[in-house]
Amino acid sequence: MRFSKLFVHTLKETPKEAEVISHKLLLRAGMIKKLASGIYSYMPLGYRVLRKIEGIVREELDKAGAQEILMPVLQPAELWQESGRWDKMGDEMMRMTDRHNRNFVLGPTHEEVVTDIVRREVKSYKELPINLYQIQLKYRDERRPRFGLMRGREFFMKDGYSFHTDEDSLEKEYQNMHEAYNNIFSRCGLTFRAVEADSGNIGGDTTHEIMVLADSGEDEVLYCDKCEYAANIEKAESKFVAKENSEELKELEKVETPNKKSIEEVAEFLGVEKINTVKAMIFKTEEEFYMVLIRGDYEVNEVKLKNLLKVSEVTLANDAEIEKLNLHKGFLGPVGVKLKIIADETIKNMKNYVTGGNDIDNHYINTNHNKDYSVETFADIRIVKLGEKCPRCSDGVLNSARGIEVGQIFKLGTKYSEALKCNFINENGRQQPMLMGCYGIGVSRTMAAAVEQNYDESGIIWPISIAPYIVDVIPVNMKDKEQVEVAEKLYNNLKENGIEVAIDDRKERAGFKFKDADLIGFPVKVIVGKGIATGKVEVVNRKTGEKEDIEIEELLNYINKLIK
Amino acid sequence: MRFSKLFVHTLKETPKEAEVISHKLLLRAGMIKKLASGIYSYMPLGYRVLRKIEGIVREELDKAGAQEILMPVLQPAELWQESGRWDKMGDEMMRMTDRHNRNFVLGPTHEEVVTDIVRREVKSYKELPINLYQIQLKYRDERRPRFGLMRGREFFMKDGYSFHTDEDSLEKEYQNMHEAYNNIFSRCGLTFRAVEADSGNIGGDTTHEIMVLADSGEDEVLYCDKCEYAANIEKAESKFVAKENSEELKELEKVETPNKKSIEEVAEFLGVEKINTVKAMIFKTEEEFYMVLIRGDYEVNEVKLKNLLKVSEVTLANDAEIEKLNLHKGFLGPVGVKLKIIADETIKNMKNYVTGGNDIDNHYINTNHNKDYSVETFADIRIVKLGEKCPRCSDGVLNSARGIEVGQIFKLGTKYSEALKCNFINENGRQQPMLMGCYGIGVSRTMAAAVEQNYDESGIIWPISIAPYIVDVIPVNMKDKEQVEVAEKLYNNLKENGIEVAIDDRKERAGFKFKDADLIGFPVKVIVGKGIATGKVEVVNRKTGEKEDIEIEELLNYINKLIK
Repeated sequence: MRFSKLFVHTLKETPKEAEVISHKLLLRAGMIKKLASGIYSYMPLGYRVLRKIEGIVREELDKAGAQEILMPVLQPAELWQESGRWDKMGDEMMRMTDRHNRNFVLGPTHEEVVTDIVRREVKSYKELPINLYQIQLKYRDERRPRFGLMRGREFFMKDGYSFHTDEDSLEKEYQNMHEAYNNIFSRCGLTFRAVEADSGNIGGDTTHEIMVLADSGEDEVLYCDKCEYAANIEKAESKFVAKENSEELKELEKVETPNKKSIEEVAEFLGVEKINTVKAMIFKTEEEFYMVLIRGDYEVNEVKLKNLLKVSEVTLANDAEIEKLNLHKGFLGPVGVKLKIIADETIKNMKNYVTGGNDIDNHYINTNHNKDYSVETFADIRIVKLGEKCPRCSDGVLNSARGIEVGQIFKLGTKYSEALKCNFINENGRQQPMLMGCYGIGVSRTMAAAVEQNYDESGIIWPISIAPYIVDVIPVNMKDKEQVEVAEKLYNNLKENGIEVAIDDRKERAGFKFKDADLIGFPVKVIVGKGIATGKVEVVNRKTGEKEDIEIEELLNYINKLIK
Repeated sequence: MRFSKLFVHTLKETPKEAEVISHKLLLRAGMIKKLASGIYSYMPLGYRVLRKIEGIVREELDKAGAQEILMPVLQPAELWQESGRWDKMGDEMMRMTDRHNRNFVLGPTHEEVVTDIVRREVKSYKELPINLYQIQLKYRDERRPRFGLMRGREFFMKDGYSFHTDEDSLEKEYQNMHEAYNNIFSRCGLTFRAVEADSGNIGGDTTHEIMVLADSGEDEVLYCDKCEYAANIEKAESKFVAKENSEELKELEKVETPNKKSIEEVAEFLGVEKINTVKAMIFKTEEEFYMVLIRGDYEVNEVKLKNLLKVSEVTLANDAEIEKLNLHKGFLGPVGVKLKIIADETIKNMKNYVTGGNDIDNHYINTNHNKDYSVETFADIRIVKLGEKCPRCSDGVLNSARGIEVGQIFKLGTKYSEALKCNFINENGRQQPMLMGCYGIGVSRTMAAAVEQNYDESGIIWPISIAPYIVDVIPVNMKDKEQVEVAEKLYNNLKENGIEVAIDDRKERAGFKFKDADLIGFPVKVIVGKGIATGKVEVVNRKTGEKEDIEIEELLNYINKLIK
């Protein structure tokens, strides 16, 4: 690739709208251009990166036995009505009508379409399992699209779907895809972790997210420092070991706490530690109000609570609803309350603790469950904290990291196959719904995540496997015929030997070219300068910054070694 | 690829909705599945074909110096309002609104977006020319989508756009793309012709269509039997050589022709040849009515008429409009008419001919222009007929063929750059709009066109370069261990040697497998049967039907030769 011909326009200044590093650098390196909010064009260098990621995804999935298909972006509403998601998806789903006023969806995902294909074609257990995937545009009408390729409205995903006769077969394919995903993200040169996650609205039960670890990640991941355990904060559990507590139970006592509402205020006012207080909250489901208790220094994990209650949503009750229950925000407590009470297991061994008085400006001290009130269910409903014990191994401690979700694998079970009647005839001749798995990769998001994990103050540092070109040959002085000649020779030689190479043949200062090379993020710069007098060029490793003078004859070997 | 694992479901019966052969065969071969009217999913084999065509397109365009980008499907309405096409595109353009009620287009084409990118980035003549292309989904809300991939609502196009400082540069790139297109369709194994065409609503003046020649083509192409001249019927010209006509002019005479309205009726009633009659019609533009004259045996080409009048649309006047002009359909003629009269050049040398009498049930005989009425303009406004003389060479005659338009190249001129203010600073430091070219290929349509041109009663006959797999190895008797073993060995050997090969390892009858192989259209069948006793397998060439017994050791060589 010749810079003199390349359509690339790097920017010195960071565009104002860019908040995260990948957005800033992909714009500055001229790899993407914004067309509309959350909608980007890929320029030549950027599209090469995207296609390299696509290529790796395709190779690894083909190797794992999945088959590539392509399903339409435009999907008829009828299928979404059949699955029940037409009403559930809300404003995030982009919809349109055609000239005959028929409703269509711009596919945010393709469970309905693929299930429709399979139900029409597959009849017998003999034809299962199948794993079909595609790499296709997806649409999500984010309320506030941002972060460039990280959270767009039109983006690329690889989405795959597997169909099975039984749980064993599904589990086998789930592990197969887990492994394929490990291979994919390893080959992309990324540091990542597969973490347990909540399965959300897609349905199903088991799911893992693949998180690229980066400080800017939107998700918090907790992982064990000893074993493989890692989980999204939404899902993370810990082994809670309650301390022995030999205190004697004291008598419940109501005290005045004028205007002290938060745990902090109350603890300070009463001169107790937060761990000796219990926070009470009112949550509501579609059917019922619950009082939820948690130790004062913890927060409630709504996802865990929702799963515990087996509902699709829980929300905090608002002030009016609380008043209607004759309770008072800031002074909530379990004593005398008629709601079902759910308590986090952190409370189990507590004694003589502070709770709200259920009167304005009042709290109880020396509260004790089983004596002053009853808990309906104890469970793990807290947001786990850094430093807690690993729930899986014996001596691990949980660490925390930020992660960018680039992939997710689900066991869907029969959610879609039941709704869409995607059945097979089993060995006994009876109809049965197929079990499904589904496997996604945010392809364009992976591109952004790679930048979030690989950059410095000068620009992007592409992993070799997904770099737009690997080597940038830079003649220092374009007026020096010999330098230009050597540079051209090296460029051609590297190209002929299968190295993806660029030459910066623009009539610009060397410093300008170095800056562009670093901003765009080529893994290797080959600088052709005065050193050619002694038969040498300078090779700079973008990642380590290491510079080395290399004999011109040795360059190809040297670069081949670098690449490996 | 193992058939036992492949997601493919061939059909014995042709689905009722399929009208053309490519639609029938792509459905029957299980390569595509209909999701909604004009919207298809590609199954594994079909998607391989599509991707092969894509690959050829990409390679040839990269070689020609074009640069690949990717622009979004969703485009903000503002750009289309700026170019003026928001109002012009009508119902065929798919539109939608996002959650904030902003209007978007599902891109039917990308002139606006690419021009917007270039106007933001390119400032100087030094940065031109540029040629950017993409392979992207396109949307067109056809009133009556049909013919499968031939005329769909969601389809793949390669669209490319070039930007220039001057006409010479544009012409050079136009020829460059012309050549690239020749290479692309040659490599796809298709018989095609580049034909002159009308540029329609895209604007610009010069344009060629690439037509794959096939009996089912929607377009009629006229081509010279001696030289390179070929044109779409809309555009086709001919050299009209008027016969010497030494007749003396006779006196105009009105005759009764009760109820004789068509040329056929009038000619028969009056006992004259159709070539001695002149047909008159009333056409209207937005501004004016015209009377158009043509020799009785010809038809008017509305595209030529429209271009002659330099308007965007001409239509035939309806009955009411004709009556309002005090004229009468069926009895229209030029004598005494006050409209501007445009006549085809076929009339120039005619004398003493029949025309309408402008009274009901009356015609004139012995009409003569210049004497009985005046013609404003003589021009070529006729639909050219098979057998007329080539307009370019001295002795060629025009032949006719049917064609499927798979590509088109345009010189757009400054239509979009002026509307969107896509300017550059020229060598004299002055702003000037860029000249543009645009270059399209119907990628999914090319897939269909390949089938229209390559099939027989058994199914598809894929050209080798775009076949999903080249060889299908078929063990005749799956119960014969030796046959299966030999087949597996051959399959592995071919695969290791880079041949794209399938093995039909399904436990089915050989005849069933042969039928599938022919329907799907693999170029080569390798049949592993009883011949292995003497060390031979049968190789069948799908296209020629030739069968040959080949030594097992020689198979790889033999197939490599076949492929070349």
